[in-house]
Amino acid sequence: MTRAVLQTAVVGATGYVGFELTRLLLRHPRLKPPLLLTRESNGNSTAQLADIFPQLAGNGSHPLEPFSWSKLHAKGVDLLFLATPHEISRAWIPEAVRRGLRVIDLSAAWRLRSPAHRAAYGFTDPDPAAAEFVAARAVYGLPELVRDRLPEAQLVANPGCYPTSVILALAPLLRAGLVELERGIVCDAKSGVSGAGKQPTAETHFVEVADNFRAYSVFTHRHTGEILEQLGLEPAQLIFTTHLLPIPRGLLSTLYLHLRRPLAACDLEQCWRDFYCDCPFVRVFSPPRLPEIQFSLNTNFCDLGLALDAEGSRLVVVSSLDNLLKGAAGQAVQNMNLLYGWDEREGLA
Amino acid sequence: MTRAVLQTAVVGATGYVGFELTRLLLRHPRLKPPLLLTRESNGNSTAQLADIFPQLAGNGSHPLEPFSWSKLHAKGVDLLFLATPHEISRAWIPEAVRRGLRVIDLSAAWRLRSPAHRAAYGFTDPDPAAAEFVAARAVYGLPELVRDRLPEAQLVANPGCYPTSVILALAPLLRAGLVELERGIVCDAKSGVSGAGKQPTAETHFVEVADNFRAYSVFTHRHTGEILEQLGLEPAQLIFTTHLLPIPRGLLSTLYLHLRRPLAACDLEQCWRDFYCDCPFVRVFSPPRLPEIQFSLNTNFCDLGLALDAEGSRLVVVSSLDNLLKGAAGQAVQNMNLLYGWDEREGLA
Amino acid sequence: MTRAVLQTAVVGATGYVGFELTRLLLRHPRLKPPLLLTRESNGNSTAQLADIFPQLAGNGSHPLEPFSWSKLHAKGVDLLFLATPHEISRAWIPEAVRRGLRVIDLSAAWRLRSPAHRAAYGFTDPDPAAAEFVAARAVYGLPELVRDRLPEAQLVANPGCYPTSVILALAPLLRAGLVELERGIVCDAKSGVSGAGKQPTAETHFVEVADNFRAYSVFTHRHTGEILEQLGLEPAQLIFTTHLLPIPRGLLSTLYLHLRRPLAACDLEQCWRDFYCDCPFVRVFSPPRLPEIQFSLNTNFCDLGLALDAEGSRLVVVSSLDNLLKGAAGQAVQNMNLLYGWDEREGLA
Amino acid sequence: MTRAVLQTAVVGATGYVGFELTRLLLRHPRLKPPLLLTRESNGNSTAQLADIFPQLAGNGSHPLEPFSWSKLHAKGVDLLFLATPHEISRAWIPEAVRRGLRVIDLSAAWRLRSPAHRAAYGFTDPDPAAAEFVAARAVYGLPELVRDRLPEAQLVANPGCYPTSVILALAPLLRAGLVELERGIVCDAKSGVSGAGKQPTAETHFVEVADNFRAYSVFTHRHTGEILEQLGLEPAQLIFTTHLLPIPRGLLSTLYLHLRRPLAACDLEQCWRDFYCDCPFVRVFSPPRLPEIQFSLNTNFCDLGLALDAEGSRLVVVSSLDNLLKGAAGQAVQNMNLLYGWDEREGLA
Repeated sequence: MTRAVLQTAVVGATGYVGFELTRLLLRHPRLKPPLLLTRESNGNSTAQLADIFPQLAGNGSHPLEPFSWSKLHAKGVDLLFLATPHEISRAWIPEAVRRGLRVIDLSAAWRLRSPAHRAAYGFTDPDPAAAEFVAARAVYGLPELVRDRLPEAQLVANPGCYPTSVILALAPLLRAGLVELERGIVCDAKSGVSGAGKQPTAETHFVEVADNFRAYSVFTHRHTGEILEQLGLEPAQLIFTTHLLPIPRGLLSTLYLHLRRPLAACDLEQCWRDFYCDCPFVRVFSPPRLPEIQFSLNTNFCDLGLALDAEGSRLVVVSSLDNLLKGAAGQAVQNMNLLYGWDEREGLA
Repeated sequence: MTRAVLQTAVVGATGYVGFELTRLLLRHPRLKPPLLLTRESNGNSTAQLADIFPQLAGNGSHPLEPFSWSKLHAKGVDLLFLATPHEISRAWIPEAVRRGLRVIDLSAAWRLRSPAHRAAYGFTDPDPAAAEFVAARAVYGLPELVRDRLPEAQLVANPGCYPTSVILALAPLLRAGLVELERGIVCDAKSGVSGAGKQPTAETHFVEVADNFRAYSVFTHRHTGEILEQLGLEPAQLIFTTHLLPIPRGLLSTLYLHLRRPLAACDLEQCWRDFYCDCPFVRVFSPPRLPEIQFSLNTNFCDLGLALDAEGSRLVVVSSLDNLLKGAAGQAVQNMNLLYGWDEREGLA
Repeated sequence: MTRAVLQTAVVGATGYVGFELTRLLLRHPRLKPPLLLTRESNGNSTAQLADIFPQLAGNGSHPLEPFSWSKLHAKGVDLLFLATPHEISRAWIPEAVRRGLRVIDLSAAWRLRSPAHRAAYGFTDPDPAAAEFVAARAVYGLPELVRDRLPEAQLVANPGCYPTSVILALAPLLRAGLVELERGIVCDAKSGVSGAGKQPTAETHFVEVADNFRAYSVFTHRHTGEILEQLGLEPAQLIFTTHLLPIPRGLLSTLYLHLRRPLAACDLEQCWRDFYCDCPFVRVFSPPRLPEIQFSLNTNFCDLGLALDAEGSRLVVVSSLDNLLKGAAGQAVQNMNLLYGWDEREGLA
Repeated sequence: MTRAVLQTAVVGATGYVGFELTRLLLRHPRLKPPLLLTRESNGNSTAQLADIFPQLAGNGSHPLEPFSWSKLHAKGVDLLFLATPHEISRAWIPEAVRRGLRVIDLSAAWRLRSPAHRAAYGFTDPDPAAAEFVAARAVYGLPELVRDRLPEAQLVANPGCYPTSVILALAPLLRAGLVELERGIVCDAKSGVSGAGKQPTAETHFVEVADNFRAYSVFTHRHTGEILEQLGLEPAQLIFTTHLLPIPRGLLSTLYLHLRRPLAACDLEQCWRDFYCDCPFVRVFSPPRLPEIQFSLNTNFCDLGLALDAEGSRLVVVSSLDNLLKGAAGQAVQNMNLLYGWDEREGLA
């Protein structure tokens, strides 16, 4: 019988991603209840996560406690999840690594190797050498691409939601050399509002979002660097544009590319199927079926589909996932499963 | 030919109600372009309303200027609209009245006569005598009920959105003595999110509102006083409950009451039709047709419909309107039309 | 270790309720994969449920097969779920009972005992005696009220979504004699669109529903009979009104009632807590927290909350649930668990 | 004073486009009330448009009458609007032209010259010569491009909603020779659900659309031909993909193209401004402001905005409009104004 063994902790359980993560961890068969930590050292000692997310009511007590390193130690935490702002993750993780903790970071703090891409976040590392030491050990945790490296990893940089959808769609085609990169790739991506976080802003006000749709961060979205770096592309080879959908969650990327030589749709489908044959969380749809946001909502799947023009040379790819699950918390759990050598699907099916 | 004659000013054009009001005033055939004033004395002198509401782009220049009494005087403002927080309206209007301006106030500052009801707002009047002087001259501007008093009014307290829907539904039935008040009236009201204002809050975050529905302010909503006072009801005779709909605008009240003696649906319909025979903005639907929020959206109509039980004794009334128009800005324009003796429908059809 | 033991079958898996039910059955630890049956005898023998609900893709094969009694027998089906139109359930179930099958019927066919209430459905039973025989054995499957009778039941009439929310809210208060029935109870209920079924109609067209809200079936909703019958109320004691919310799923009822004597909110809360102390799927919220539709979405919970006026005499109750789960498919699984003596929560947590 | 002069007729007022058109015609200052005609010859002679669209209640009588040519003649109809299926428009218009009527057709029946593009609609003309005669006189009614030809036109083929947004965005850039056509243009377009028409289908069911987003008709959308033909592009030069947004109305196209030589954003903005200097219904936004669907909702504007990469060579254009107004009924009224030499904005501001 499955027995709870691992003690985890979550910092940031009161955000959308942190809450989804906590829900997954609470029902994961190999875990003790996670320690839920807040960044406020003077936190209310009687606060419960269910006070903030009454969805959780009726499932026992889930106290929120102020974070401290000593508490992690005292409670025997093995694995630390950070669902924190980039700056916090950047600042805290060197210490966590020093203390020998394993960490899955859901921010962008440690995703990028190239200083040029990382510059978009404006991190200032007080101890650059320590930061470099940590960065060198971070694994970009897209499990379908780095499964083998995860069991050894101490720090997993959990990918962004948009990059997950784009990289999973393109990696097999690029590695097979099918794409005419000189023609450039266009990625027109759209996401639900939870991707913008829980902090109320003018941009997330219901009246501004409902019955609306808009592009944002055109040519400047910080996820661009992740995509380029992981796919080995030059900036000139990709236009990545993001839009805000009037829905709470879900993400869909429409990708446009030219093939180096004419192919049949079934060849492309097979390229994906071969690449992902051991990947339970990538679903390949056969033409003419295309992914829709509803299909993967509340799941950890990334769904892929395609349409090809009559000449077999211009390709439209659709990639969709739940931005809070495969795009964040679900992927983090998948990474945890692989860190510890468990079945990738534990707690996610 | 219609000629622009009146100079108006709007304070608060950058909120949802103020913006709707400004749009109406801009196309009203009897008005010069309204002066748009902000409460910030150090406002950016080059700001344009279209910077905040690009909906307005392409319709000329609409500068936002810092408010001052001298500016009102210099520009020859006759009529001042305040789409400001309650406290601001409470503080500013005595001065406006002293200066001889006519004022239509869209806040709740001057709607209530009874100190008990007014207490819900917690106003503190520095000069209570002046406040009392002003309050005594304020007309509760529900045009269908007070049309005759409006031409003389200097200060119009524009009604709340919920009270407009409830009072218009009930006044004819109550005045005709049809309602068994001892049994009590239940009002289950629902509103879109723009009623909560433009300030981003946790309650107006898209992810919290979408796919959701909730009751709020049960037994404590501040609009209760308006309804009781205007209808001459005792607190024990009405339960008024409000809910938040996952839509940007629109409001619907479902009312439950008992009749003093059995009636036919057509009698009740006729009671409304007689009462509102000269009222272009109240639409009475014949059973079984009931108002829906879509029907009055983007209009100044309040729609009324009813269903009666088989015994003719229990009555369900549905009343619906656009909370930003008949529930706020449209009604303010209707009041203006009546203040100046114009056709009620000018600029509203 | 839990072992799959029971063979179930579902008729109607291609509707919203049937699909939710199938998803639950597929992951239930005590079940073999359910047989999925269509009413069309000439069904496409290669059809898969995932063709209709691609949400299910990547989870194995789920063939849809034409229904026949012999197939049920050949496959060793113990328990038959009918997610079929009322008329079909009414016609088929006498035969199922005769064949010794246990049945959980998600339609309204066998919920009502009183011919007066049942008349609203217009059933014509070709063999009235057989129908009467079956009706007498049907248990109205609201598990919180009939838990003891379920282990013996052969036929469970799974309750309607609205009645579940209303009966669970009121039963404890009524049984405790707290409600002034002479004053009457008002139930103002609101549901998402999936309650209307999957068949496209003018009423379910996106453009007609979005940005809208409307009352429907005022005084004539067929769920009224269920509520009255289960609560032992007279028609004059309840007004039940339903509205359509512009959301896909979720249901919230706002109930208005008078207490026989003044009480404190905590007394009422305690009344519920005592009544439901052994009921894992009813959550009682402490004032001032009220249920919201989001809280119980995608769960089998029914959430209860209340607000009391200052005099302690007028009570507003809010009851909310997911119409497809606790209001239909989840409750059916809960009933199955109790039929077979399993933990109520199996496959539902 | 403006005086009503023209008698129009509308066939298809009960659809979404036809209804919007009728609302515009009813308040147009130069028109008599339009004759509202249904295709059903045995129509109910007492039907009113307000029975179908209660939005119209309280605005007088708007009877729906069965269509006949003799009725058009008897009523002195000058201008016929067809908001009918493509096949109906294709079949009826030769007769209308023969009878000397002016016609604005809102279907796609007469928009395309190239037989290759037209083949997508599968029209079969019983009298090909007559069809050719009519087609030769049809003007593709995008007023910003053909203003001069409209006063002479007898038949206006009102453009599709997607093509309007795309052609208005691209025509100035293409005519100025700024676009590297060899690199291809990508158009990723998104529309609200009213574009799919009022007929209930699985695709327009609220539960299928809400919380969802999907691509459709990839490489096969019939609007492609209009865009290619009007812009003089080869099929290989454009990928046009459409998506369904979970909103009732509004349309936004995101366009990706390469410039032939590096430019500044202000040069491109100026190119648009010069081209549309006399066009009241095209609004050019200055970077970094981009159009959003809300901005043009319920207006006849097409909004244009752009973002340029750092090298000045890759361009993203955003074009947005209300699919029922500038994308259909509003544009039809604009065309009518130009047909009769009136101010383009009459009845539209």
